[in-house]
Amino acid sequence: MTGSISLVGAGPGAADLLTLRALDRIRSADVIYFDRLIDPAVLALAGPQVEMVFTGKEVGAHAWPQDRINAVIVASARAGRNVVRLKSGDPSVFGRACEELSAARAAGIPIEIVPGVTAASAAAASIGRPLTERGETDNLVIATGTCRPGDEAPDWGALLRPGTTLALYMAMGKLAEIEASLIAAGLPADTVVEIVSNASTGRERQLASTLGRMRAEVMANGLKGPAIIFVRRPKAAAIALALIA
Amino acid sequence: MTGSISLVGAGPGAADLLTLRALDRIRSADVIYFDRLIDPAVLALAGPQVEMVFTGKEVGAHAWPQDRINAVIVASARAGRNVVRLKSGDPSVFGRACEELSAARAAGIPIEIVPGVTAASAAAASIGRPLTERGETDNLVIATGTCRPGDEAPDWGALLRPGTTLALYMAMGKLAEIEASLIAAGLPADTVVEIVSNASTGRERQLASTLGRMRAEVMANGLKGPAIIFVRRPKAAAIALALIA
Repeated sequence: MTGSISLVGAGPGAADLLTLRALDRIRSADVIYFDRLIDPAVLALAGPQVEMVFTGKEVGAHAWPQDRINAVIVASARAGRNVVRLKSGDPSVFGRACEELSAARAAGIPIEIVPGVTAASAAAASIGRPLTERGETDNLVIATGTCRPGDEAPDWGALLRPGTTLALYMAMGKLAEIEASLIAAGLPADTVVEIVSNASTGRERQLASTLGRMRAEVMANGLKGPAIIFVRRPKAAAIALALIA
Repeated sequence: MTGSISLVGAGPGAADLLTLRALDRIRSADVIYFDRLIDPAVLALAGPQVEMVFTGKEVGAHAWPQDRINAVIVASARAGRNVVRLKSGDPSVFGRACEELSAARAAGIPIEIVPGVTAASAAAASIGRPLTERGETDNLVIATGTCRPGDEAPDWGALLRPGTTLALYMAMGKLAEIEASLIAAGLPADTVVEIVSNASTGRERQLASTLGRMRAEVMANGLKGPAIIFVRRPKAAAIALALIA
């Protein structure tokens, strides 16, 4: 009998930010394939009978290539097992879910997505500042610092239109480029930047900085990813700039 | 002794898409103030000892004004109660959380945000198509069809740059304006539009349509909000258009 695959959002890190459905899938799995960013507190929720397979990068080793993950989860499900593919945050946001959905569908394996709390939501909750602020920022743009190798970098400045909160994922290695792009788009160097690393976990750290100072302060504070970087361009600022010009 | 306020994300609707933390807050609340969009299955999780107060719109009546909600939750917490303010989805996304955070802070009441699964994540999971598709759509823009009264409508066409998935909330009443804005921005009328109403609930409905046909098909199918409307503009389409031009 064919098994099934569940792409499960593990949430941002804290075990109690898992959904009840994710917990159910983790507990009833035969095998769980998990990534580097999954918190040990989440992994501990699986029973002792569940086979745990780490697909992420260990020091001095490489992460599994996506093709290998696709092949292995499909083979496991074909062997009749309930496969959980555990992904940090929400599998639909920068989760490489497409490749795994396609592989499963091509093989005729039932596959579902269990949505999760994405890191930007957890980071916003931690700093106590919402992702949208009525009348100020009515758009939330979730973008990445790291695209597919060979792809052009996103034009962050163009994304940060007036009335927008920009939440950057996987961007801690691109601070210089982001600063340059946003300054070129007309944002003042003293624009507030909020950074939350490891949101919701015991290792969470927060930094309130500015566009001009963030690189130096991230370095001085030894802040590392995974992190969410927030930059806001309220409608009011746009109006003020128009009045000055 | 002063109580506290917890702005709790109830998730998209299905009770098992609540987080464990949200469930804990609901179970340990003295009073829960909840909105129109909270699913009865979620409300049923509160114990019989919890006072339930409906702040939403009933047929023929008005929703509580935001000021009244602010005042009442602060007064309840000041009276020593554990107050849960239950919001659909993630409180940080179009949740009017700012106003409630400000009111609590001004009154010196401890307040937290419990993040939740936002409706776009649930809608993407339901249709089995992620919010970002590597190399195609590296940006997710969450925008609204409904701004503060008196505010200008968002420029949806400008938000939907190449490489973007646009997820529109509270937009079912603005289909004509959205169509016009996106067509003016250069999107073909046969651009695929996916609509998911009441994502994750027993009343969920899905519609795959196009920019040009969505208004007629939404009407013909009697589709109503709350719904998420997805429109995608992949990088590849931008390249193809550039080659034609």
